[in-house]
Parts: sequence; structure tokens; C-alpha cells
Amino acid sequence: MDVKDPLPSWNAGAAKTAILEFVESVTRLEASFVPRAERIATFDADGTLWCEKPFPVEADFILRRLAEMAEADSKLRDGQPWKAAYEHDKEWLGKVITEHYAGDDTKAQTLLGGIAAAFGGIGVEDFEAQSDSFLRSTQHPTLGRGYIETAYAPMVELLGYLEANGFSNHIVSGSDAGFMRPITEELFGIPPERVIGSASALGYASDDTGGSVTRKAAVGFLDDGPQKPIHIWSGVGRRPLCAGGNSNGDIPMLDFTRHADKPCLRLLVLHDDAEREFAYTSGAEEALERAGTRGWTVVSMKNDFATVFGASSAAD
Amino acid sequence: MDVKDPLPSWNAGAAKTAILEFVESVTRLEASFVPRAERIATFDADGTLWCEKPFPVEADFILRRLAEMAEADSKLRDGQPWKAAYEHDKEWLGKVITEHYAGDDTKAQTLLGGIAAAFGGIGVEDFEAQSDSFLRSTQHPTLGRGYIETAYAPMVELLGYLEANGFSNHIVSGSDAGFMRPITEELFGIPPERVIGSASALGYASDDTGGSVTRKAAVGFLDDGPQKPIHIWSGVGRRPLCAGGNSNGDIPMLDFTRHADKPCLRLLVLHDDAEREFAYTSGAEEALERAGTRGWTVVSMKNDFATVFGASSAAD
Repeated sequence: MDVKDPLPSWNAGAAKTAILEFVESVTRLEASFVPRAERIATFDADGTLWCEKPFPVEADFILRRLAEMAEADSKLRDGQPWKAAYEHDKEWLGKVITEHYAGDDTKAQTLLGGIAAAFGGIGVEDFEAQSDSFLRSTQHPTLGRGYIETAYAPMVELLGYLEANGFSNHIVSGSDAGFMRPITEELFGIPPERVIGSASALGYASDDTGGSVTRKAAVGFLDDGPQKPIHIWSGVGRRPLCAGGNSNGDIPMLDFTRHADKPCLRLLVLHDDAEREFAYTSGAEEALERAGTRGWTVVSMKNDFATVFGASSAAD
Repeated sequence: MDVKDPLPSWNAGAAKTAILEFVESVTRLEASFVPRAERIATFDADGTLWCEKPFPVEADFILRRLAEMAEADSKLRDGQPWKAAYEHDKEWLGKVITEHYAGDDTKAQTLLGGIAAAFGGIGVEDFEAQSDSFLRSTQHPTLGRGYIETAYAPMVELLGYLEANGFSNHIVSGSDAGFMRPITEELFGIPPERVIGSASALGYASDDTGGSVTRKAAVGFLDDGPQKPIHIWSGVGRRPLCAGGNSNGDIPMLDFTRHADKPCLRLLVLHDDAEREFAYTSGAEEALERAGTRGWTVVSMKNDFATVFGASSAAD
């Protein structure tokens, strides 16, 4: 290519080459050209577009709310998930995630039930205002930067590169769509209508001033595993041409990103950079194995990312 | 205005004036300007963007499938909805719709159960291929034109006018999203990801060639009444600035289209043109009453539409 490097935050290597060749093939080569309308890209959020350790950003938001509730009402402290939140029991919380990735959602359902109760009865616009305020004011516990500064700069650059090449980028996350929507446009260039995520059950109440959509105290669905391709279809109505994930919960979405007659790009972010971020493969073992047999592109944060995060205001 | 009339298919009158003034106010007046990203417009489909009489287009598609099933299996003929489909019992089918609008969904649930069973186990891509083929090959029973030629030309023109003014148009229909998606871009300029509709429950099955999302033999949800604002929020994440409907099932969506600090446009299509289309208010009584008290704009097909349909290939 004789043009300026469109991905300066990526080191030269197999991953960068795979991205550039894929985009070249669907946008410029006659035999593999794909019309713009079909250039759908779907990305997991936590651990793929931004940091998910020591726990996903939304977990911090929820745990603070649960702890507040337990602070105000001592009876709540006897049952999960309030007990863990109140006691800052990271072990129980860690198990929610480990067991979820291992296929056991018992604790995840308990946590989801707590979340549903914690925000039950709140209007969706109020919920987003709370999330917006939390995300803009809270520091990551160890990285020395705000949560909204934990987006991976090379992934943000990739999203921009895809968009500049006619792709329509979507977030498909296990986190609540309403939690992320206030900041996805600013952080990732992805507007709210292209954010698919988990959801509580919703209700609508009419009134004289426009009515309101309200979160019910009941779980809607957890957008993970097979729910990802299902909600991509419901929300987008097309099979992705490009997808990115980092864990076992992303396997069905990455599998679904396949066309008999078109090139496709499946990216799996590997967390192998303990110095600049975190190093872990827990919850991603099966995905990593599958990457090898299915021709997915593994993105090593250590080797492929020239930089991990963007500039931080906290560094001032 | 000294520019060319952007809505030549609309006769001069209160409805056309309301549309032009609304678009002018949110795009050009400083005090009431609304950024492009917030210019969300949501339209019901059946009876709002295209003809829904003598029955909604999807009903014809479904009834043919149910009749085929009853033809092949005589045992099915004893139960609804197969009995009605097999016997061409328009009275039972008419009651489904009348009772639905009157708030009784018993028959609608029976019909939905039949639909779920009729298409249960079919891949979503196959379902859309079937719908696409049906829509392009089937004539409307009385209008002397194909179903895809029953779109209302002034509404298509309105969608184009809104889009040209930075609006993002969405369909929010009681019909199945997958049924309409194959033709919405071509007919209404609305791509599949902006079509919200009813849905069957979906499943995902993995395989070595991309896996498939499949319709289960179970009802997902009926996107009507309060489900419309709920699914607008889930899918779009914003409150509409403009909405159009024609029946009681659109009331919550039209109510929801209201901002304390911004202009908004709520359109209610009135079917009062027996000569060029159909004349009926059944199922729209409450909506019409509400239009008067809430400042919605009633669109009279007889008086406001200079033409109803576009050119028809059947006229050749």
C-alpha cells in the first residue's frame, strides 16, 4: 500500500496484515467486493474495546448501588448479591464471572436478579443519566485513569478505519445497553441505536407528558453466548462481515460471522500484557482453541498494540 | 418558502403545513433546533405506510401457509387458526383484528401461536427469502396492483423529505420485522436495522459453516400498544421527535413522541377515502379522539393526499 498507514497504533504483524487485507478485499477487489450496506461489524465491549479487569465497568456501578442499598437496609446484607457488595467480597464476585464462563450461570442469575431489583422502577432515561455521571466521574481502581479512558486506542482506531471504509459498527455486549449508550458515541463513534446489550424487562406507563419507559425489577436477557447472534439478527437483520471478541461468550457471534461467498474477519483479543494492562486467559480458553481451528485472527495486546490506551487527563 | 415544494404529493392544508413548519423549526430555527442525531422518526407500517385492508399484508402470507399445512394434514382443520385459513373464514380473521383493537387479544394469541408453529424451525434467512418472494409476486386482492405497490406515495415522499433533513426513519410495526425487511429499503428507504416489529422466539444453533438463527415455534412478542415505545427504546435508545400511526395500537408510540423542550410531530393517518383506498375508523376511534386533545396532526387520505399510490406495473 502506498497510502499513509491507517493503523499507526498497531504494530506490524499477522493481525494488522489480516485487517488491512480484509478491508482491501471487501472494498477494492472486484471478486470479493461487498456492498456498503452489508459491511456490518459487531464488537463485544468488555475486554474487547475497553478494560474489563479487575471486573467489568458495569459491575462497579452496580456493586456501589447494591452496597448503598445494603447500607440503608440491614436486612439486605444477609442475601446475595447485597452481602457480597456490602462486604466487598471480591471472591464471590470473581466466581460469578469464572463460573459464567465455565457455563454455570447460577451466581450470574443471582447477580442479575439483584441488579434488576436495584434499578427496578427507574425510568430508562434516569438510568442512563446515572450511568453517564458514574462513567464520567469514576476512576479505574488500578490503571490511574478514568473508566472512560480505559478504551483500547488501537481498537478505537480500528473502528474508525472500518467506518471510513463504509462499515457500520455495532457493540454487542453482555453489559446493559443503557449503561453504555451515554458514552459509546464519544468513546467509540458508535451511536446508541447501534448498541446491543443485556436488558432488564421494560414497561411503559402513559401520562400527560410523554409517558415513560421504566426498568422492571426482572431480568430481561443476558446478551452473551448464543444470545449474541440472536440479538444481532433481531437488531440488525444481517449476518456480520467482521466481529471482535475476547472470551468464550463471544464464540457464537464469531462463529456466526461467516459467509459462504464473502471474506470475513474474526478478531479475538488476547490479554497477554500484564505490564500495560492485564494478562489472563481465564474464560477465553475455548475461544482461543477455536481461533486456531477456525482461522480467527488472534490479536496479542502485547505484540500487536503499539499503544494500549489513549492520553489520560489523570496524567496531568 | 421560496424553494421548490418538497411534498408535491400532498395537497395544501393543515397537515402539509404542520409537516413543513415542524421540519423548518427543528432544522433551521435557532430556538428550536434539534441536532441530527436526535432527529428520530418512527412510523407504523400497516395502514400508515402501506395498505392494510382487507387485511394486513402479512396476514395473507401467513394464511396461505396455514392453508397449505391444513391441506396437507386434515387433523389441523379442526383447530384455529388452521380452520379459518383452510375455510377462508374471513369473519374469524376479521374478528382477530377488531377484538385486538378493542383490547382482547385471545384470538390474536391463537393466531400468533399458529404463526409460530407454521414457521417454527425455519432459519431466519429462509423466512426472509420466502417473504421476499411472496411480496414480489403477490397481487393485492382488490386494488389491481402488487402488494409492494400499495405503499402510500405521499408517505414515501415524506420519509424521503425527513431523511433529506437529517432524520433517521424507523418502522415500528405489529407485523414481523423479518417479514418486512426484504423490501423496506426499496419501498421506504429504510434499511433492515431500522425495522422494529413483532418477533417469534429465536434460537441459535452452531455448526461448521456459520451456524444459524432459527425461528422457534413460540411467540416472542407482539410489537403493538405499549410494546412500541419499549422496543423503540431497546432498539434506538432515544425518544422519537416525529411519529406516524393510524390506529389505537399506535397511541403509546405517539404519546411517547414528546419532548418538554423540543418541537415534535405526531401524525395520525385517517382512512377516509373509499374511492382511492378504503374508508374505516374501526380500531382507530380512541386514537382519533386523542388526536384532538393532544394536538396530533390528522392526515386525511382524501383531502391531504394528492395521489395515494405510485405507478403500478399492473397498469401496463
